[in-house]
Amino acid sequence: MLNQDRLNRAQARMREQAIDAYMILTHDDYIYFFGEVRHQPRAIVPAMGPPIIITFFGEEEEVKRSLGVGDARVFGTVGQQIKDVVGVMREMSGGKESLRVGVQMWFNTPAFLLNMFQRANPQIEVVDIAKVMDELRLVKDDEEVALMTRAAEIARIGIETAARFLRPGITENEVGAEIEYAMRKAGGSGVATPVFVNSGYRSGWLHGTTTEKVVERGDMVVVDVVPRYRGYCANLARTFVVGAPTPAQLELYETYRRAQAAGIAAVKPGIRNREIDAAAQRVFSEAGHGERYVPGISHSIGLDFEEMPRPTIHPADSRIELVEGMMLTVGHSVLSVPGVGGVRIEDTFHLRDGRAHALVACDVAFELPC
Amino acid sequence: MLNQDRLNRAQARMREQAIDAYMILTHDDYIYFFGEVRHQPRAIVPAMGPPIIITFFGEEEEVKRSLGVGDARVFGTVGQQIKDVVGVMREMSGGKESLRVGVQMWFNTPAFLLNMFQRANPQIEVVDIAKVMDELRLVKDDEEVALMTRAAEIARIGIETAARFLRPGITENEVGAEIEYAMRKAGGSGVATPVFVNSGYRSGWLHGTTTEKVVERGDMVVVDVVPRYRGYCANLARTFVVGAPTPAQLELYETYRRAQAAGIAAVKPGIRNREIDAAAQRVFSEAGHGERYVPGISHSIGLDFEEMPRPTIHPADSRIELVEGMMLTVGHSVLSVPGVGGVRIEDTFHLRDGRAHALVACDVAFELPC
Repeated sequence: MLNQDRLNRAQARMREQAIDAYMILTHDDYIYFFGEVRHQPRAIVPAMGPPIIITFFGEEEEVKRSLGVGDARVFGTVGQQIKDVVGVMREMSGGKESLRVGVQMWFNTPAFLLNMFQRANPQIEVVDIAKVMDELRLVKDDEEVALMTRAAEIARIGIETAARFLRPGITENEVGAEIEYAMRKAGGSGVATPVFVNSGYRSGWLHGTTTEKVVERGDMVVVDVVPRYRGYCANLARTFVVGAPTPAQLELYETYRRAQAAGIAAVKPGIRNREIDAAAQRVFSEAGHGERYVPGISHSIGLDFEEMPRPTIHPADSRIELVEGMMLTVGHSVLSVPGVGGVRIEDTFHLRDGRAHALVACDVAFELPC
Repeated sequence: MLNQDRLNRAQARMREQAIDAYMILTHDDYIYFFGEVRHQPRAIVPAMGPPIIITFFGEEEEVKRSLGVGDARVFGTVGQQIKDVVGVMREMSGGKESLRVGVQMWFNTPAFLLNMFQRANPQIEVVDIAKVMDELRLVKDDEEVALMTRAAEIARIGIETAARFLRPGITENEVGAEIEYAMRKAGGSGVATPVFVNSGYRSGWLHGTTTEKVVERGDMVVVDVVPRYRGYCANLARTFVVGAPTPAQLELYETYRRAQAAGIAAVKPGIRNREIDAAAQRVFSEAGHGERYVPGISHSIGLDFEEMPRPTIHPADSRIELVEGMMLTVGHSVLSVPGVGGVRIEDTFHLRDGRAHALVACDVAFELPC
């Protein structure tokens, strides 16, 4: 059902910023307002008054029933969908020369869709809705904390499954299959980013996935999971070594653990995001890995896998101050030393009572028997 | 390894269209040229000469080794990555006032990334690379046909798994977990679009996913899967009824089967994509469902789940002519009758020897015992 409180707060911010309407094209804000998972949703939130849902004719009755929203424009084709959107925009503009319409411009908004929207509505000034939604979504309410805690429990099951299946001879794809299946069986609806099972030379990669590569004895393996529960994400990453680690591998792992701990200890309301980085950087530099450190060890998370602040993508976000009630991860950066391997150890935290509380404890050993 | 033949053909088209370089930001074209799966790849293909890979320092050695590419610019941060790209662009422009650079603007290119690229390179005119890549990728070579046939076999396993697990009392999420796991175990690397298990009132939805909804006796269930094998997709959808169908459900299902068959029979080189639609539309109209028909029953497919022509998204694509050697699906449109249910029956075909050949046969019964 429509969350009237969230709607009211978003509309107040929209009016402050002279944004006439928000055109929702992505699932995250749709879930935020309507609490319902729908693939490729379309809705228009005016600066005042009830939202308007744009929906396929086969979904009309169910949308009205489940959302408690009276105004649904129904389409049967893309052409009609565009007409519906343009029609609502015209009605809204009334006598006005032009409208300022917010659109989300993050990972889930394809460039062509934005172009299509602008071509269909030439009288509209499109603005980034991040100014309204990012701050609003930064602090999580109790319901959101509960959903993310559930997502974190699902993530832990994914990591524990990895520890159980990783052994010489298994492929990354096979391990990925077991992780995804276990997380699904635990109630997850899927993943927000591809599951990483980055083994051996792939452990030092910046991004990840699973491939046909066979896991070998001595491989370091970075496993990173971001399952969703009712739209909400939690992020958990652990690094393993298959068999006995070399001294260099063990040193890399222990350094990362200390760096993550330093980052976690630095978390408190009022500091800037980059101070978490600075705390971790000191540990890496003292260990002689300063050059190998990728700044941006912490990002926020919620209905999207990376929410503001997300300094590895928007470096300016490193100046954003932490606030009580936000969610954040610590451990996002990979420590990558070619010839040795890569390490990433990441947990999701709730900033509560002035410090970081992990959503779940996930104690798995670095060294896996083989 | 770099596919020099594909590169040569792309570069010839780029020169014809006065495009100086192609900035690759998406996995599909990266796989097309380099045959390697990498999450968030970055590469620049100039109109002449060898490509330049932009990669994270931890991946440099392995990228050079596996791709056989000499020129890799290495970054450690997003800032450095942007500098690398800008540097290459400057080198390329030489004495030129401005460069025309192609970028893919489809589902996998986020709006913000394109904005970031334009801001970092104000001297550049950004053009849609679709004009180069869409036609190039339309006709599949033997290697691509083999990979897509493998993807289709994995899709069939997904559909057969759905038939085995669908019964009253199971949730859509649970069925989805089994489908994804079975497809992974069969060699798939994941899915290109979320698995649909749209049951009961959700069967008539335009898009899909799996939810916590419990499958009930009498539900129609649309199952739609698009697994990937080494980057390549195949699309397969089937509709089931859990228990004995009502006469209206059976009529809807049989009508769709006849419409799909009419669409398949219409496929031949030289006709326009919309003629497949017209053949299906006649069947739906004669059955009294003409108003419920969503035009766009056929789209192409390959390294992306919808490739040109994709008439439900770009209506003008309905005028594109079919060519020998292309891949296409027939059955993309949902037939949605509120109160009865929805049907979608979709297969992937290779247009060969003048007619449509299904990549796999997938004979599952409409009625599931319960």
